[in-house]
Amino acid sequence: MMLNKVQLLPLRMKGSVHMMKIDFSGSITNVCMLVQCLRASHQLAGRGSCRHICSQSRVMERGGATCSENLSSIFPPVRNHSIRSLSSPPSFCYRKNLARGNVSHMACRSMSSLQGTKDRYQGLWVNLAYPQEEQDIQNMTEDQFHLLLTESLLRWRTEGLSCVWLKVPISHSRFVSVAWRQGFEYHHAEGKAAVLNLWMKPEAESKVPQFATHQVGVSGIVIKEDSGEVLVVKDKNRSHSLWKFPGGLSDLGEDIAVTAEREVFEETGVRAEFQSVLAFRQQHTLPGAFGRSDLYFLCRLRPLTFDLHPCSEEIQACQWMTLTQLRQEVETTSMTLRLADVVQKGLTHGFQEVDIGATEMASIYRGLKFNLFHRPL
Amino acid sequence: MMLNKVQLLPLRMKGSVHMMKIDFSGSITNVCMLVQCLRASHQLAGRGSCRHICSQSRVMERGGATCSENLSSIFPPVRNHSIRSLSSPPSFCYRKNLARGNVSHMACRSMSSLQGTKDRYQGLWVNLAYPQEEQDIQNMTEDQFHLLLTESLLRWRTEGLSCVWLKVPISHSRFVSVAWRQGFEYHHAEGKAAVLNLWMKPEAESKVPQFATHQVGVSGIVIKEDSGEVLVVKDKNRSHSLWKFPGGLSDLGEDIAVTAEREVFEETGVRAEFQSVLAFRQQHTLPGAFGRSDLYFLCRLRPLTFDLHPCSEEIQACQWMTLTQLRQEVETTSMTLRLADVVQKGLTHGFQEVDIGATEMASIYRGLKFNLFHRPL
Repeated sequence: MMLNKVQLLPLRMKGSVHMMKIDFSGSITNVCMLVQCLRASHQLAGRGSCRHICSQSRVMERGGATCSENLSSIFPPVRNHSIRSLSSPPSFCYRKNLARGNVSHMACRSMSSLQGTKDRYQGLWVNLAYPQEEQDIQNMTEDQFHLLLTESLLRWRTEGLSCVWLKVPISHSRFVSVAWRQGFEYHHAEGKAAVLNLWMKPEAESKVPQFATHQVGVSGIVIKEDSGEVLVVKDKNRSHSLWKFPGGLSDLGEDIAVTAEREVFEETGVRAEFQSVLAFRQQHTLPGAFGRSDLYFLCRLRPLTFDLHPCSEEIQACQWMTLTQLRQEVETTSMTLRLADVVQKGLTHGFQEVDIGATEMASIYRGLKFNLFHRPL
Repeated sequence: MMLNKVQLLPLRMKGSVHMMKIDFSGSITNVCMLVQCLRASHQLAGRGSCRHICSQSRVMERGGATCSENLSSIFPPVRNHSIRSLSSPPSFCYRKNLARGNVSHMACRSMSSLQGTKDRYQGLWVNLAYPQEEQDIQNMTEDQFHLLLTESLLRWRTEGLSCVWLKVPISHSRFVSVAWRQGFEYHHAEGKAAVLNLWMKPEAESKVPQFATHQVGVSGIVIKEDSGEVLVVKDKNRSHSLWKFPGGLSDLGEDIAVTAEREVFEETGVRAEFQSVLAFRQQHTLPGAFGRSDLYFLCRLRPLTFDLHPCSEEIQACQWMTLTQLRQEVETTSMTLRLADVVQKGLTHGFQEVDIGATEMASIYRGLKFNLFHRPL
């Protein structure tokens, strides 16, 4: 697709309104892009109206188009190239000498756009922390970034992308609201970067998955099988201070079994070894979960040490308690009591009756492993 | 704590360097705050050095302090109040008339700071979407917000807060990097808002929980108990196109059982009813999970309809398959085969042997319910 001819002809000049005619031969698609570029430029400059561009553009008989616009609102030239192939959408730079009553020069450059890498869902990942080809993002003003993003979006729309992802370092956060004005929203953020995204197919429902919907907590039920005692604690600083099994939230990337062993040790000083999952709970709208849901796993552990060294900051009380004592306890929850029943069944009939055991298996993704939990076969 | 006397005395004036003496009686703590305020103001104004303030401040015998500073770099007055109680930290406004060779006036106002609500962990939540007392956040420049945040942090530090949370609407994202320069980082973000936080006790390990660490996926294993057939699909657009049970990611706030029923219907057109969880898998560093971990639940479902209407966009193939066929299938995964074994055991010995059943229970948080999954007792 070639842009064969570009002429910039002054039409009339009346007060501050300078009309011009853009006359070129090219496809209708290219004319539409031209008009979009000009409109974006006008909006960016925030001066004058861009309606002229649209209302007065029309396709001409010879396959080109004429487009008149209010030159007084054109922002200053950015960079000039000679007219080149229009296989990519164009943007325009202007040199005008309105004082002399004519338009002396108009140059066309191939549009510059943000660089990224495609994923297998036809999504494009752009990381503003990485240098962009010919673009010094770090020192850009918000207006310059707005133009660059506008131009990039025009190109990406023609490329049929499904979704654009924008990873923005926290130091560049001034660009976040620029992107938001173009339709982007936060997908997620953590530490020193935010990831925004824009679904590019408004006619189709977004297929972008929500970011992590759950936090995961794990309790360790440490059982002395000979005496039928279990390890229980009372948390400090809680409105409901109830006897419970020691436990807490999983760290990112931490296996359920590891969380159980770690939390038991941190809270009570007891070393114990993961055996199985006995139960799990799914709960929504839990306070302190930042609007996410909660999955809580209750695991069976075998004690390796028995002395108690409770964490003074977090734990108000800590003890070995028989199941009989625990079941008579007023200051506990129905979930803890239910688990006491599960443990009792295990002690009476063997834990194979209640265990949900873990087996390590190989993932379809090379090098990855996972734990599959199910009833022993 | 009272600020009894404030005097601003010109000391010397030499070229552009105007030294002044701030003379007041007050506690040492208040002097330190004064110095910090002045330093922050200097940094904000970006003019001149603030070293004079620190190096030349010293505690005086009578319980006050003297502090000299480079007046030429003082930013313009913001607001004036008469001298008032210093139960809250002070900030200063200046009216200077250096042209006349003297400092005519100095006023002290009680510091303005961002408003928020405390949580039970001594954390303060500040939402910039809400109007702040006497502060028009929306129209603030980055410099003005920097000063407001500086003043707020000074106050919060004296209040012994453990953590400050800043909810920033996407339209105000220019304030994010301002907050970052004061030590804040993203905790999470979604849609039109980001939440930043700052742990206020550098001497103690941060107790701020990570935001949601897991995505949750659910498969439905729909079983025709009379014929021993299960419902399997092959996904479109996958590098590994393998026979699997229909399934997908849970929406935020969606129960495992609901996801199973929804995904089976969306992918195959079959209506089915949740019975139990048969297995679950925990996996980390899974592609497409945005760096979060994955929990995947495999559920047993009873079919309510049998005709197949597979989703043309997502599903390449869909059929009822006997367990014998599935176990001979090359194009499947070890996890699917393991589940075939679990289902086979259920068909042979009764599903009570393999089920992990759900019971709805009441939460300790009023009005909340949850599902607890464990072996039938």
